[in-house]
Amino acid sequence: MKKLVHGVHRFHSEVFASQRDLFLRLGGGQSPQALFVTCSDSRIDPNLLTQTQPGELFILRNAGNIVPAWGTHGAEAATIEFAIAGLGIEHIVVCGHSHCGAMKALITPGSVDRMPAMREWLTHAAATGQVVDECYADRDPEERLNVAIQENVLAQLTNLRTHPAVAARLATGKLHLHAWVYKITSGEVFAYDQDAGQFRVLGGEAPAMDQPRRSLDGALLADARDGGSR
Amino acid sequence: MKKLVHGVHRFHSEVFASQRDLFLRLGGGQSPQALFVTCSDSRIDPNLLTQTQPGELFILRNAGNIVPAWGTHGAEAATIEFAIAGLGIEHIVVCGHSHCGAMKALITPGSVDRMPAMREWLTHAAATGQVVDECYADRDPEERLNVAIQENVLAQLTNLRTHPAVAARLATGKLHLHAWVYKITSGEVFAYDQDAGQFRVLGGEAPAMDQPRRSLDGALLADARDGGSR
Amino acid sequence: MKKLVHGVHRFHSEVFASQRDLFLRLGGGQSPQALFVTCSDSRIDPNLLTQTQPGELFILRNAGNIVPAWGTHGAEAATIEFAIAGLGIEHIVVCGHSHCGAMKALITPGSVDRMPAMREWLTHAAATGQVVDECYADRDPEERLNVAIQENVLAQLTNLRTHPAVAARLATGKLHLHAWVYKITSGEVFAYDQDAGQFRVLGGEAPAMDQPRRSLDGALLADARDGGSR
Amino acid sequence: MKKLVHGVHRFHSEVFASQRDLFLRLGGGQSPQALFVTCSDSRIDPNLLTQTQPGELFILRNAGNIVPAWGTHGAEAATIEFAIAGLGIEHIVVCGHSHCGAMKALITPGSVDRMPAMREWLTHAAATGQVVDECYADRDPEERLNVAIQENVLAQLTNLRTHPAVAARLATGKLHLHAWVYKITSGEVFAYDQDAGQFRVLGGEAPAMDQPRRSLDGALLADARDGGSR
Amino acid sequence: MKKLVHGVHRFHSEVFASQRDLFLRLGGGQSPQALFVTCSDSRIDPNLLTQTQPGELFILRNAGNIVPAWGTHGAEAATIEFAIAGLGIEHIVVCGHSHCGAMKALITPGSVDRMPAMREWLTHAAATGQVVDECYADRDPEERLNVAIQENVLAQLTNLRTHPAVAARLATGKLHLHAWVYKITSGEVFAYDQDAGQFRVLGGEAPAMDQPRRSLDGALLADARDGGSR
Amino acid sequence: MKKLVHGVHRFHSEVFASQRDLFLRLGGGQSPQALFVTCSDSRIDPNLLTQTQPGELFILRNAGNIVPAWGTHGAEAATIEFAIAGLGIEHIVVCGHSHCGAMKALITPGSVDRMPAMREWLTHAAATGQVVDECYADRDPEERLNVAIQENVLAQLTNLRTHPAVAARLATGKLHLHAWVYKITSGEVFAYDQDAGQFRVLGGEAPAMDQPRRSLDGALLADARDGGSR
Ligand SMILES: [Zn+2]
Ligand SMILES: [Zn+2]
Ligand SMILES: [Zn+2]
Ligand SMILES: [Zn+2]
Ligand SMILES: [Zn+2]
Ligand SMILES: [Zn+2]
Repeated sequence: MKKLVHGVHRFHSEVFASQRDLFLRLGGGQSPQALFVTCSDSRIDPNLLTQTQPGELFILRNAGNIVPAWGTHGAEAATIEFAIAGLGIEHIVVCGHSHCGAMKALITPGSVDRMPAMREWLTHAAATGQVVDECYADRDPEERLNVAIQENVLAQLTNLRTHPAVAARLATGKLHLHAWVYKITSGEVFAYDQDAGQFRVLGGEAPAMDQPRRSLDGALLADARDGGSR
Repeated sequence: MKKLVHGVHRFHSEVFASQRDLFLRLGGGQSPQALFVTCSDSRIDPNLLTQTQPGELFILRNAGNIVPAWGTHGAEAATIEFAIAGLGIEHIVVCGHSHCGAMKALITPGSVDRMPAMREWLTHAAATGQVVDECYADRDPEERLNVAIQENVLAQLTNLRTHPAVAARLATGKLHLHAWVYKITSGEVFAYDQDAGQFRVLGGEAPAMDQPRRSLDGALLADARDGGSR
Repeated sequence: MKKLVHGVHRFHSEVFASQRDLFLRLGGGQSPQALFVTCSDSRIDPNLLTQTQPGELFILRNAGNIVPAWGTHGAEAATIEFAIAGLGIEHIVVCGHSHCGAMKALITPGSVDRMPAMREWLTHAAATGQVVDECYADRDPEERLNVAIQENVLAQLTNLRTHPAVAARLATGKLHLHAWVYKITSGEVFAYDQDAGQFRVLGGEAPAMDQPRRSLDGALLADARDGGSR
Repeated sequence: MKKLVHGVHRFHSEVFASQRDLFLRLGGGQSPQALFVTCSDSRIDPNLLTQTQPGELFILRNAGNIVPAWGTHGAEAATIEFAIAGLGIEHIVVCGHSHCGAMKALITPGSVDRMPAMREWLTHAAATGQVVDECYADRDPEERLNVAIQENVLAQLTNLRTHPAVAARLATGKLHLHAWVYKITSGEVFAYDQDAGQFRVLGGEAPAMDQPRRSLDGALLADARDGGSR
Repeated sequence: MKKLVHGVHRFHSEVFASQRDLFLRLGGGQSPQALFVTCSDSRIDPNLLTQTQPGELFILRNAGNIVPAWGTHGAEAATIEFAIAGLGIEHIVVCGHSHCGAMKALITPGSVDRMPAMREWLTHAAATGQVVDECYADRDPEERLNVAIQENVLAQLTNLRTHPAVAARLATGKLHLHAWVYKITSGEVFAYDQDAGQFRVLGGEAPAMDQPRRSLDGALLADARDGGSR
Repeated sequence: MKKLVHGVHRFHSEVFASQRDLFLRLGGGQSPQALFVTCSDSRIDPNLLTQTQPGELFILRNAGNIVPAWGTHGAEAATIEFAIAGLGIEHIVVCGHSHCGAMKALITPGSVDRMPAMREWLTHAAATGQVVDECYADRDPEERLNVAIQENVLAQLTNLRTHPAVAARLATGKLHLHAWVYKITSGEVFAYDQDAGQFRVLGGEAPAMDQPRRSLDGALLADARDGGSR
């Protein structure tokens, strides 16, 4: 803890002092451009990774960068709702990472037998686990972990789509979802490319997981419509 | 109830008698080809609508043809899991319908104030409600109901995708999802055509809501891989 | 699915065409006489079994024809509430069936170890399981399954009585409960006869599980009443 | 608190001293004859009311003597299960009481608006509330409270029957349920007489709410049985 | 049950008759001084133990004298809320006891395998179990049970502090918490002495588990405050 | 998003390149010294604030830096359990902050009426709300917000203590809790000083919220002990 306390002092005397204007302005409110969902893992620093300053990323972190689907009343639903309805955020990045302990626990039978809360929590990544079991059973353990990390980011995006605020903004085209994986030992970020069906090194533009927008026909079911005319 | 009792007797003396072989064979087990999810509404008879016989459709019915996303322990998760893992079902149809009382309740503020269980249940269709609010606010009430019915079928498919058994079979390409709406007063079924972004009268083939399959690169995050080379 | 699509076309061109009046009338609303709760099993067609037409049966179906007791927020509570408060339904039939896979799973230890949602769902039939364990331990497996099917219908009626809308209407005598079991291979329906303590082939009248109505004495606890005089 | 502390000292020097044998014997274990469920209300002393000694009554108390139906994981399910499976208890008394604050809160709209936990808890007595609303709407407020107290005891017995341990022991005839109401200002206990459909001053014997026992026919659904012969 | 029925009659003819004034007065309302939380164990009679009369103790009893932390909607939250907000209670005693079957179950692996509701319920005492595991692993079984009983009372007080009504009244100094353990075979009550870090025979005064009160500085974070002046 | 993508590229080419050794070492595992719980607010960068590097802080972030008490199955319980049992973390810092939108929502009636998930989530800060209501009712709105922020950090520490892993490690003295508030516009961190009952600018050492450790007397309740001798 001593290190942390000294760090806080150094932050105050050096960082804050040199960026006082930024921090005073932030006192007036935040308007971050993205909600960044990532793992609690200590090796990830979202602001460092994206080279962003305070005020730019709204951040949700938990073990495994998991977003339970709608219906479970927890931090994730509330934080997402607040980000969208309260802050008008237009991008959500779910960012998994290499060497993830939570994903390792997920695919290692018995590993959380003595961690009941973790076992319960990982039920929200059960889709990840079952996809790995059914699609990648023949891979070696390291590969299985690596595909679990990738599949989990996609599974959590699927969960994300069930949240009303997300569904509504996706429908209006005002929200964009991004699936990322950060590789700690190479400093790379891979983004899922929907067309390729693969994660690829993040290039010049971030591919969004958008789906074609629709505007349904309200007259389709109207009784006036002549059912026989088709 | 008298009518029902007489009906049962007539079933026994007429229908069973003439199809005894079918029913004896069904005693040996069921192998339905599809899970048909629809509303409890009395005006829908799934077997009549699809002209199927006993043994052909595994059927889940509740008010509003709602499938809560994974994480809520209820009938839907269990019935879906049993249909896939226990019976090997390869198609799931979620079939909404015109004139749906549950959807009307969903988009009519205050309508379920004295039905607390219904109000709670409709939270699993909150995405439908919010999409209607944000995308179709300018439509007249009848149109709003009609788009709610359609959007809800799509929202429930989104919920469905969060179930581990569904996710795993979708990933292997062994499961296909279908979004249908049945119009009671015209006898038509409309199916969602993903490419068109519209529901269309069910034609010669049932369009499935399949997404491109992927096989992720297990080596992507491997430490051996040279992170700098790409 | 091809078969289903063709069936829908045949329904439209044959059934709907010949019963257009019925379906147009149903567009005006439903007023079913009964809520029919049964299993998702594909071998059951409630309308065929009771020889009823669209508009006559409000139908709730899930794996095991289970109705969780009040307190669990799910489809069943909502659908029952809507049936009673919204549609004024006066009869509820819970109809189990022979050869039920859910009941077999319930009494077969280990059978749902890889179906976590099913295992969770079956806790709402735990009373059935424990009654079978304590009362029918000496029966052979087939008999145990057959009594489980029957006991489960009665256990679910017990659960049903805990729902406020059910309790209130039972108290006013405006709702009647029926416990049925359908035998697939004989086309028979057995109804529970409360006086006999047995299921019996459904006869001329459907025996209801009504209990004597009461009108309690509001003065009983009044302070004015002389406590010593009785 | 001073009074309590002095009371404890008096208990030790007077009561314990004079009944040392009883208490030493109780150190060896308890074998109570009944589970007594009653309200937390300070005016009720179950041992005083039944003139029982330590070791004779297993006691569950909460606001409103409420027993949530099976499916809600709480103290009640556990305590009942322990009483039956762990202690072999053969009688359960649910004892409501006159002047009950919880019942008053239940039937007084708005009274728990600032007590969210109480409001939530009272959903397990919603059946009581709805029965009072639908059957006793014309009674004056005091009578409504008094019938609510009585109806609630019966509603909680209905909830009790959904617990697996209760259902199984009722089925074997080894458990008996009793519905009591204690009138504070007269010192009377009223017990529900099922045949009369009324609460009556507890007479020479405690009427139990037992239902006829059944032993179902395991052959009823057997395929070997000739379905046509009956 | 005969004994109970006779007891009720004796209560009415002897106790009530001789204390009619007290009971008539209690008809006007209750104003208990303390909420007494204890185990359902039949060997505990809180009024006998504290030598209190009807009207003096508001009593919550369940298996293990457990108070789930805030967030679990159950009897405990409601009863506590009612005691504080409804009755203005100023003292809460959590009273464990020697020879507790629930605590024995908690620390005996496998003992509740066939009591699923009990197993679930004991998760609210998991802190007790883990403290015993990590701090008293070297003690013999009897000692482990005895420290579990003591640690559990303290763990439940920790849970109690999370309840909003408790937190608010502790903050205003209007509520006091007490940790007691009752030894059945000696008639003693031990109270936790916070300074000593030990349970001690209850002496002349009941030590409360109060914490220093605070009144936080509302200006601390105010923007007007000169951040540099410290 | 463009800014983020460019940031990632800059991170890779500049930061990673210059600290390759650190990141390669981190590939071997993490051993953070503290779990840092803070708000999702974009204006907080925990690593910047404490001047720590990747690998030093395990971080849990959600709207309002809330830690539901034990019993709610969510990210927080799992992440804490993993931090302690999986990573052996010895310090937990709960760090609130000035200008917190979640706290503002908590104390502003009606502000989350259209954010149902947020409203539900804030029930885990209800203790904060009720303490502010009862203790600081006379303060002006800004002061109320500022004390809410401080009280909430303390309320969440109270919640934290109910987690089994936390309770056990606190009991063994191997875990230390810290209550911090970060003031954005001054760059200061205030830490709660338990003795002073106040938050104070973080000085040379971080005051921990430790409580005196205890080692309870396992013989206290033993039957062999002579109950009368004390
Ligand atoms: Zn991770
Ligand atoms: Zn409908
Ligand atoms: Zn079945
Ligand atoms: Zn009461
Ligand atoms: Zn006990
Ligand atoms: Zn904040």
